[in-house]
Amino acid sequence: MQVVAQVSQQRLLDRLAQLARFGALENGGVDRQALSTAELDARAWLIDWAGSLGCEVITDDSANLFIRRAGQEALPPVVTGSHIDTQPSGGNLDGCYGVIAGMECLSALHEAGIVTRRPIEVAVWMNEEGSRFAPGAMGSSAYVEPTRLNDYLAHQDARGTTVAQALQQCHERFPHLPRRARVPFAAFIELHIEQGPVLEQAALPLAVVSGIQGVRWYQVTCYGESAHAGTTPMAMRQDAMTLARRTAHQVELAMAHLPAEELRLTFGRWDITPNAINTTASQVSFTIDFRHADASVLAEFDAVMQQFAAVNVQVKSLFHHQSVAFDVGLIAQQHASAEALGIAAMKLMSGAFHDAMHLAGHCPTSMFFVPSHCGISHNPAEHTDPQYLYLGAKALAHCLTELANQSEGVNP
Amino acid sequence: MQVVAQVSQQRLLDRLAQLARFGALENGGVDRQALSTAELDARAWLIDWAGSLGCEVITDDSANLFIRRAGQEALPPVVTGSHIDTQPSGGNLDGCYGVIAGMECLSALHEAGIVTRRPIEVAVWMNEEGSRFAPGAMGSSAYVEPTRLNDYLAHQDARGTTVAQALQQCHERFPHLPRRARVPFAAFIELHIEQGPVLEQAALPLAVVSGIQGVRWYQVTCYGESAHAGTTPMAMRQDAMTLARRTAHQVELAMAHLPAEELRLTFGRWDITPNAINTTASQVSFTIDFRHADASVLAEFDAVMQQFAAVNVQVKSLFHHQSVAFDVGLIAQQHASAEALGIAAMKLMSGAFHDAMHLAGHCPTSMFFVPSHCGISHNPAEHTDPQYLYLGAKALAHCLTELANQSEGVNP
Repeated sequence: MQVVAQVSQQRLLDRLAQLARFGALENGGVDRQALSTAELDARAWLIDWAGSLGCEVITDDSANLFIRRAGQEALPPVVTGSHIDTQPSGGNLDGCYGVIAGMECLSALHEAGIVTRRPIEVAVWMNEEGSRFAPGAMGSSAYVEPTRLNDYLAHQDARGTTVAQALQQCHERFPHLPRRARVPFAAFIELHIEQGPVLEQAALPLAVVSGIQGVRWYQVTCYGESAHAGTTPMAMRQDAMTLARRTAHQVELAMAHLPAEELRLTFGRWDITPNAINTTASQVSFTIDFRHADASVLAEFDAVMQQFAAVNVQVKSLFHHQSVAFDVGLIAQQHASAEALGIAAMKLMSGAFHDAMHLAGHCPTSMFFVPSHCGISHNPAEHTDPQYLYLGAKALAHCLTELANQSEGVNP
Repeated sequence: MQVVAQVSQQRLLDRLAQLARFGALENGGVDRQALSTAELDARAWLIDWAGSLGCEVITDDSANLFIRRAGQEALPPVVTGSHIDTQPSGGNLDGCYGVIAGMECLSALHEAGIVTRRPIEVAVWMNEEGSRFAPGAMGSSAYVEPTRLNDYLAHQDARGTTVAQALQQCHERFPHLPRRARVPFAAFIELHIEQGPVLEQAALPLAVVSGIQGVRWYQVTCYGESAHAGTTPMAMRQDAMTLARRTAHQVELAMAHLPAEELRLTFGRWDITPNAINTTASQVSFTIDFRHADASVLAEFDAVMQQFAAVNVQVKSLFHHQSVAFDVGLIAQQHASAEALGIAAMKLMSGAFHDAMHLAGHCPTSMFFVPSHCGISHNPAEHTDPQYLYLGAKALAHCLTELANQSEGVNP
């Protein structure tokens, strides 16, 4: 509680505003692509700040940063953090809030003059957004599975710069940072904006995230024949748009048994040929984004999709990721911290991906969410009530301090 | 019957092939835009041919051509014909068949040495396709309502050439053709390919066309909010694609009481924003093409569409045209001609527009259709069995000769 008392809302907001200057856009948003000049400038600013708090800054081959506050014992650290790269027209909270709130916890510990038993680190994961180099969560996934880095090195941005070249530029900019291979973590807790409307609708300031939904992306292509809208009777048509609309509806019906609050089913992208007013479609492709927390439901969905494959319906899997359940011990500590601070918190599944999804393969992992106004994210209009940003940072400070002082391993 | 006996399948096919050389494409199709060099060359070829048959060639301010075979008396002519302009990648039958078959009738009359009581003219209407200059049916509509020509003169093609300039080039190429203002027609009968699959499906060589369906074009724009496909529960979404799919289905349901063989309802063009896999749509526009022969059904459809207008659904009329019923006296003569020649003919409504749609406002008008293989048109693959082309020309020759020899007006 001594630490929590040192968490400052004003300092938190000031530092968020300072970070937002790196890559600031005229529309109020931020364009700070992974390993860009603006992002390297922001790293330099963070590294200076870390030094002023007496922290060590460590990097690794993937240019992840670890801002380390030493503990009393040389135990695996309790780690928080997120990312500071943004979408091309992003807001100043996605990722940044988790990093700056983590730094705020280190500042609070520093001001309270408390040294925890375990070290505490703020991680800054490289290229979470994936908007400069695909895929996203590059740094955190390579941290957990180091062999992945070799696969990523040749990936190029739109100008042909490779990940390898961008990493080299980053390492050359910060030649004095020690590099560290993967080490065990006692725990990883990521604080993030929800990027959805649920907390705001529930009028609650905080969520303890129970896991990340698994996702299935499919592309369904329906084939027909283009024919004249006036001369072709309905019975003689093979209108690919009619087939596509019917297929989408059948997918909805097939999953309609799920409780409404669990269902996430989106037909987002459509391509129609020839897309003319007075001609029936010869080909229509549409995508399906389906998400669920339960592996058996995801498997059921895969089976449903296979049933739709036919001579005139092609079903193609574009992407899939299994669901992740966060650590029950951490979740219990998060609820205990919220309760100790009198912060009302709900349970929530994450529908979006985060670095924590990969860290869950490395150590006990969980997340906190604060509300996103209107659920808006990846947009300059991204906004969270400053009071909620403050409560989230306090909950994180309490939780990190408790975990770092536990005498046992954090996993019950 | 003397005239019909002189109709030659070989000559008909040869002349169609000759016309197809003007603007021929490597893919076997034709690109002969209205008033283009290729089309003017084709006109010169037609004019020479007309002279060899002893016919007079007349033009008008809209560069329509009238190839006139004199009658015994100075009565209003019986007119047939169509157009020789094509789509940019068109076939060699759409329009051309009606002109060449009309010329075949004049050849047959010439060879039979018969002079009909009334003159017979083959009209070549300017810019039916509308692919170089919008709108289509420019020549025939300006013929029937001459004040329209002034509205058309400033319309430009893709290179900025105006209709006025293109008309002037045509008139300068053929300076000796006499110009004629609008004159009364005894009748207009247009022979055309069906451009639909009905005759082929019915395995019949000929249709007597009872009229042209009226058409309604609407654009429906549905508004929603873009939201993350993973983080936004279904109940909190305003997915414009879901709204658009539901609205299209409700339009279908509203017109489902129509007999299936009468229904022509097409949702052809869709525009989706942002059209991304993992984001719900903020805006979806789709078009509706609805056609019917009955003015009361078209009015009912207009009323249905107005009911869908709402805060988040914008309903916009893009285009409309009333249905046209062809002349019952001509239809009776067409059936009599088919019967006299032993040609099985069905009744059919036209779903596509033709020059005859406008001529119906000027004189007793009707059409014959011959089958289109697979209903394909506006495409190099456009094809009709040569035997059917021959039967259509024979039916036209019989019908024109009968009408031109009637002592009474052709309208009963």
